[in-house]
Amino acid sequence: MSLHWWQGPCQSLDPVARSKAHTRQLQLTKPAGSLGQLEQVAVHLAALQGRERPSVGQLWISIFAADHGVVAEGVSAYPQAVTGQMLHNFVSGGAAISVLARQLDAALEVIDLGTALPLPPLPGVRHMPIGAGTQNFLHGPAMSEAQLLSALQAGRDSAQRAQQARAELFIGGEMGIGNTTAATALACWLLDCPAVELVGPGTGLDCAGVAHKAAVIEAALALHRPAIDAPAEALQCLGGFEIVALAGAYLACAQQGVPALVDGYICSVAALMAVRLNPACRDWLLFAHQGAEPGHRRVLQALQAEPLLDLGLRLGEGSGAALAVPLLQMACSLHNGMATFAEAAVAERPV
Amino acid sequence: MSLHWWQGPCQSLDPVARSKAHTRQLQLTKPAGSLGQLEQVAVHLAALQGRERPSVGQLWISIFAADHGVVAEGVSAYPQAVTGQMLHNFVSGGAAISVLARQLDAALEVIDLGTALPLPPLPGVRHMPIGAGTQNFLHGPAMSEAQLLSALQAGRDSAQRAQQARAELFIGGEMGIGNTTAATALACWLLDCPAVELVGPGTGLDCAGVAHKAAVIEAALALHRPAIDAPAEALQCLGGFEIVALAGAYLACAQQGVPALVDGYICSVAALMAVRLNPACRDWLLFAHQGAEPGHRRVLQALQAEPLLDLGLRLGEGSGAALAVPLLQMACSLHNGMATFAEAAVAERPV
Repeated sequence: MSLHWWQGPCQSLDPVARSKAHTRQLQLTKPAGSLGQLEQVAVHLAALQGRERPSVGQLWISIFAADHGVVAEGVSAYPQAVTGQMLHNFVSGGAAISVLARQLDAALEVIDLGTALPLPPLPGVRHMPIGAGTQNFLHGPAMSEAQLLSALQAGRDSAQRAQQARAELFIGGEMGIGNTTAATALACWLLDCPAVELVGPGTGLDCAGVAHKAAVIEAALALHRPAIDAPAEALQCLGGFEIVALAGAYLACAQQGVPALVDGYICSVAALMAVRLNPACRDWLLFAHQGAEPGHRRVLQALQAEPLLDLGLRLGEGSGAALAVPLLQMACSLHNGMATFAEAAVAERPV
Repeated sequence: MSLHWWQGPCQSLDPVARSKAHTRQLQLTKPAGSLGQLEQVAVHLAALQGRERPSVGQLWISIFAADHGVVAEGVSAYPQAVTGQMLHNFVSGGAAISVLARQLDAALEVIDLGTALPLPPLPGVRHMPIGAGTQNFLHGPAMSEAQLLSALQAGRDSAQRAQQARAELFIGGEMGIGNTTAATALACWLLDCPAVELVGPGTGLDCAGVAHKAAVIEAALALHRPAIDAPAEALQCLGGFEIVALAGAYLACAQQGVPALVDGYICSVAALMAVRLNPACRDWLLFAHQGAEPGHRRVLQALQAEPLLDLGLRLGEGSGAALAVPLLQMACSLHNGMATFAEAAVAERPV
């Protein structure tokens, strides 16, 4: 059996930096634990970055866009043309993630992995279509093995560009009409649970639409489950190019030592898939938010994730991750900039 | 009956700005509602600021510090000297709120309303002691009526300075060893519930300490409840100077038209007290986070508050509010900076 690139080792965490950061947290002028999750975040980032005082300065955001053949089954509230239109909006600066990337001074790359409708070259978009969207997985695998490998590699390439740009944090985002359907099908396989437990409105289906979406996913699972023996096969049968690329990016981030901040439902499914493909990558994943899509909570539980935000977001594009970045930055600022009890001559709590 | 200043009218919200902002949200290139709470925040800020496109640029943070006579009953994990030491730490830049104020480029004022131990003048601290801390409310009212009025006015003065500095957002913070005990006593009166339902560890009491704190609060409530007919009397009997000042600041913010972002448990109790003193002030209060202290959830429920963060914070100092500021700023950036469907030529969802 040949080893795939994503099965290679991930970077190790630095136990010395972690220990020093933990000790520092206990010395800062505040009751121990009073900064809650932000203390754990700072210590974890220290372990990832291998220094007592971590930072989240240079940010890299990669948005992967692609279309989904299963949209033919009427599983989305929006027309498929929107995928291409939003690619244009990303690079024109009008999308949510464009606004947030500007505010955060983040590098933003936009990658077209294949839309159903042909697109003219869009300045600023990295066009690398793997197909005209995936095939309809109600009738066969969503993609070929070659397409699977290309999509994984596309994600890996983004992570490598992020590392070359000396990014201290990688954010992956996604855009693809119909992709909550693909993500839910994958989540059902990953969590071994029925579609009805995870399915949700996506960008805005009504109740009947959600029920139909669940039926489509169940039918696809019935078709593919017998043939799926491993996570990579599930990705090939039920995935989307952008979901596969996200999984590849998370795996490569862990191999290259770049912390990745996972966005919403689609990204979390990709993250869980990445962890199944190579469990050691889990340490490199931070989780931004609990979104509105019902399956998100279950996927985050399976990842033992403690997301930072819970604002009822359901946009994607990496927007929820971008919104959580200031919390990571302030966790670092507090960790690095607060005085210790000794420095400030403040009485420590009597033991 | 004479009218007190805090009973005067609060500024009205602008229904036209609210309506325009709501309409704009529906036109932005995202599924309606997909930015969750941030959409409501942007529309609410528009109504408060009276313009379709709100902003949270200039920030004002006032930290009120004071000591509490009830600390004589052994209700805190830290010695009372820490209140004065932290005043020094606030202005020296080593405290959590100092770090966050720098990062947010916020104006930070630190107000000493009265410490138990005498303090030398600290450069940068606004010393305006109302007493050497409050009296022990286990044996009598925490403060005189004159002290109550002074503390309310101190908060009002801060809100006025914020307005004069053209602040677009006011954050109140607090520091005072023992102040979760005073806040919990007030919350028990406000919510008409027993101390055991609300009491918590504060800065770090153990189980026995929490039980003792509950007993102290119950005894104080038994002493004072019969004499309390109105919220202002509860504040006088059970409050602390910093808690009263916060209530005064929130009331004055609403009268002057400055939105206030409420921090943690102590601040939320002050906010609920402000709302009882003048219900119209509620509209001007935004809520930053759900903290770790058990009573906080109940107080927020009584306020019908939907806090932005839930990170297990229990530090105070306004730190949780400061941590939520970037979310407000990004809510405004998204609202103001995203393209509409028409501008971006993106297909709207078919009706």
